[in-house]
Amino acid sequence: MVQKIIALDAMGGDHGPAVTVAAARLAVERIPEIELVLVGNQEHLAAELQNNNLQQEGRVRIHHASEVVEMGDLPAVALKKKKDSSMRVAINLVKDGSVQACVSAGNTGALMATSKFVLKTIRGISRPAICTILPGIKGHTHMLDLGANPECTPEILAEFALMGSELARSVEGIDKPSVGLLNIGSEEIKGSESIKRASQLIAQSRLNYYGFVEGDDIFKGTVNVIVTDGFVGNVSLKTGEGLAALVSHVLRSEFKRNWLTRLAGLCALPVLQSIRRRLDPRRHNGASLLGLNGIVIKSHGSADAESFFNAIKIAAIEIENNVPRRISTAIENHLSQVEEAVT
Amino acid sequence: MVQKIIALDAMGGDHGPAVTVAAARLAVERIPEIELVLVGNQEHLAAELQNNNLQQEGRVRIHHASEVVEMGDLPAVALKKKKDSSMRVAINLVKDGSVQACVSAGNTGALMATSKFVLKTIRGISRPAICTILPGIKGHTHMLDLGANPECTPEILAEFALMGSELARSVEGIDKPSVGLLNIGSEEIKGSESIKRASQLIAQSRLNYYGFVEGDDIFKGTVNVIVTDGFVGNVSLKTGEGLAALVSHVLRSEFKRNWLTRLAGLCALPVLQSIRRRLDPRRHNGASLLGLNGIVIKSHGSADAESFFNAIKIAAIEIENNVPRRISTAIENHLSQVEEAVT
Repeated sequence: MVQKIIALDAMGGDHGPAVTVAAARLAVERIPEIELVLVGNQEHLAAELQNNNLQQEGRVRIHHASEVVEMGDLPAVALKKKKDSSMRVAINLVKDGSVQACVSAGNTGALMATSKFVLKTIRGISRPAICTILPGIKGHTHMLDLGANPECTPEILAEFALMGSELARSVEGIDKPSVGLLNIGSEEIKGSESIKRASQLIAQSRLNYYGFVEGDDIFKGTVNVIVTDGFVGNVSLKTGEGLAALVSHVLRSEFKRNWLTRLAGLCALPVLQSIRRRLDPRRHNGASLLGLNGIVIKSHGSADAESFFNAIKIAAIEIENNVPRRISTAIENHLSQVEEAVT
Repeated sequence: MVQKIIALDAMGGDHGPAVTVAAARLAVERIPEIELVLVGNQEHLAAELQNNNLQQEGRVRIHHASEVVEMGDLPAVALKKKKDSSMRVAINLVKDGSVQACVSAGNTGALMATSKFVLKTIRGISRPAICTILPGIKGHTHMLDLGANPECTPEILAEFALMGSELARSVEGIDKPSVGLLNIGSEEIKGSESIKRASQLIAQSRLNYYGFVEGDDIFKGTVNVIVTDGFVGNVSLKTGEGLAALVSHVLRSEFKRNWLTRLAGLCALPVLQSIRRRLDPRRHNGASLLGLNGIVIKSHGSADAESFFNAIKIAAIEIENNVPRRISTAIENHLSQVEEAVT
């Protein structure tokens, strides 16, 4: 295990230091090779460290930053006007090599814009994408893009396939992850010209291409990686969130109907709790900004400490596997393969 | 209550007459003003009627058709080569006025292509769309398009808004249904140029426009109608189906873990059953093909009798409210309003 130094945008997210510092404590307790740099307001963070019984000299230290990117800030404004924000400084630390990754629960648009500006995109990759892990009946699925690129050319979708495949290889330890392209019918006749072209491109690559998949394959775990544009990916992800909220609303209201159903709920409590654990989205918190010269992990804004810790864990896994270098090597191999084919 | 005569594509769907005839029986038992025409193979249907203790002379009669559209048939092939299919003949009966609506659990693409060809699109409407009802925390949502039109111009999306609004007005009895446009962020800055233009068009109409909604609004019931293109709508719908399957898989496996959890499941059984009833997709089976000069309802291919009955019920509601005429009046009013504004 190599030593892993990770910067946390400690001011980001709905709960700021109250969550990020508590998560930092979980991380140093559970992952011995981790060191953390908490970026943000010195005073707030020092107080929060004390609340969590954490020593500053140890594996957790504070790096002062005077500003905070708000959830409502436009990405361009955050980038231009808040050069000393906790988010920006954390990404700068990745850039200058003081840390190997950063984790933020802040404004997604600002995080992507700032990361692109500071770290730059890997040579050969047109656009970075956001990739997350979703639970499924047969196993996990890595899905990208989730909103960074609402409109994508076939070439960009093919790059996403390559990046998602490298991530799944690292995180799941699968040699040749299967890759599916999201479409509205598994027959080759359906879908737009652009989707068909993307399918051809991925099929010609060295990836383990499964073919088209549909929306219901996401939570089946049909493939290891699902590729789609940021518009469809985002709507699909949020549709899942909405349905999960509906199910949990119905469960709660039915078990609270009267004393008899409450009693039944009490009997079933251990089972209901283990169902909740298995479906808990917090276990899957932490989306990767793929395609950058550096590791940046986005946590859900409303994450609690356990959930933010999970995002830190993903950063550690990506450091262990040097995901950006893997992607860079894969795209170089891919491009030279294409060049050989042409010449 | 007006008399309602409905044709059933009795051969369509995964289970054919076994389901459609059983559903016909439920319909005549439960809805007194309904008469049904079962379209399909005379012999099969006569036998199935006998199995269900249904008399041919009564409110159910058979109309023979010699062919069947298969699930794998290409829409163009079904349209050109199977002119005596149960699907085609059922739609012909709508066209010639012998029935007021038809219901089919057959191949969606063939049903849409045949309906467009036979019934034609309402004057002023560019393309018919598929609209379904989804359950939500606060109430139902009518969502369209679900796959008929993978790519849509802003003008077409605005027509969908108008059609969905008229349907929700009829089915839910709401005077001014709220309409949302599916996007990847509720701020006006997000989304493509096309989405922004569609938003302007709907805002300028007389509809009760809510603005942008996101994927998680679908199952919240934020608005009465959600408009999107057929690609996004289809992926989103199927994502919901996939997640529902995952949840029910996890529920089942956790309650079957050991004798203790089985016992807990037994205690909670009545509650679990009422949860299942509330979330049962069969209760919402029956998608409307909107924008045609006639009422065509698509049932899920795997529907059982209860579920197919629900699609028949939706046909009855649309007859009661004369949804095609409502849409036709609404689009004429809309166009004359636009004309006035221009001149």
